Amino acid sequence: MPIKQVLTNPTEALKNFFRSHASGVAIVTGKSDAGEPLGFTATSLTSLGSNPPLVSFNVAQGASFYPSLVSGAIVNFHALGSDNLDLAVRLAGSKTDRFTASDWAADSDGIAVFDAATNLIKCRIRQVVEVEQNAVVIADVVSGLLGEPRQPLLYHNRKFATIGEELLDNSSNSRK
Amino acid sequence: MPIKQVLTNPTEALKNFFRSHASGVAIVTGKSDAGEPLGFTATSLTSLGSNPPLVSFNVAQGASFYPSLVSGAIVNFHALGSDNLDLAVRLAGSKTDRFTASDWAADSDGIAVFDAATNLIKCRIRQVVEVEQNAVVIADVVSGLLGEPRQPLLYHNRKFATIGEELLDNSSNSRK
Repeated sequence: MPIKQVLTNPTEALKNFFRSHASGVAIVTGKSDAGEPLGFTATSLTSLGSNPPLVSFNVAQGASFYPSLVSGAIVNFHALGSDNLDLAVRLAGSKTDRFTASDWAADSDGIAVFDAATNLIKCRIRQVVEVEQNAVVIADVVSGLLGEPRQPLLYHNRKFATIGEELLDNSSNSRK
Repeated sequence: MPIKQVLTNPTEALKNFFRSHASGVAIVTGKSDAGEPLGFTATSLTSLGSNPPLVSFNVAQGASFYPSLVSGAIVNFHALGSDNLDLAVRLAGSKTDRFTASDWAADSDGIAVFDAATNLIKCRIRQVVEVEQNAVVIADVVSGLLGEPRQPLLYHNRKFATIGEELLDNSSNSRK
């Protein structure tokens, strides 16, 4: 029976829970009102249905990106492979270093695309739901860029990691 | 340059993107108005800030669980380890089989707890944001149950998998 200790402090409970819960790693890019490139490494990106195609992600209202996340704004989400570790670390680090390398280019919407990512979806923000000091951002998928399949980059227990052994192929299951 | 093909169909773009984006696997449990246990396997659970501790997850409005996901309702989230594959498959399968085994018990709120999970957070639903045929559910963390650390269960490209090699320890980074 792995579960044993009761945690009455909810912050402690949250912290311990998400140490044991892994997530995929993506990069979100957009632009400021002044046209400056914006971006950060996100571990909260998830699908919100396929008809119509929608995604959601969570962001702190204190983030420098936040004022640009308004209804109608365009953002690009990049799925990262395990060999994009440098990109994940850079876009999670100092803001002044995120776009200094020449490994990105602005697309026709003026939003940064990092070609080294596995693939990309371009989205238009539909709704921003403010919750305390954070927000849930809901966006419609507009189009995509597709690369070669490869191993994903993961985040678990405050460490970046690769994926391991396949346990079960669920392709034939109707589960969403 | 891994990215090469343009996808103009947004549904196709979404589908391809999330095949390459991995996620952690959790089980959500609750109860119906009649007191029946409810639960399903979720890959959309994510943190929504730690002060106050909040989480969000996405659900289809057509899910049998959906009518019970109302403001004030209590739900339990279970983080799963790689040896909880059977539990993940069962709670994603036929509704009639989900609670027939004796590996769960109702807690003091009458909500199912699967002891085999790595750990658990008990949450109170704060807000349900309906978006097309789906919804974002926002919940406050109330308390938790803590087990031994172990390898997480992952979902990637419609396959359950374990975690692989550690690439970088990010513990000293201030990144959220």
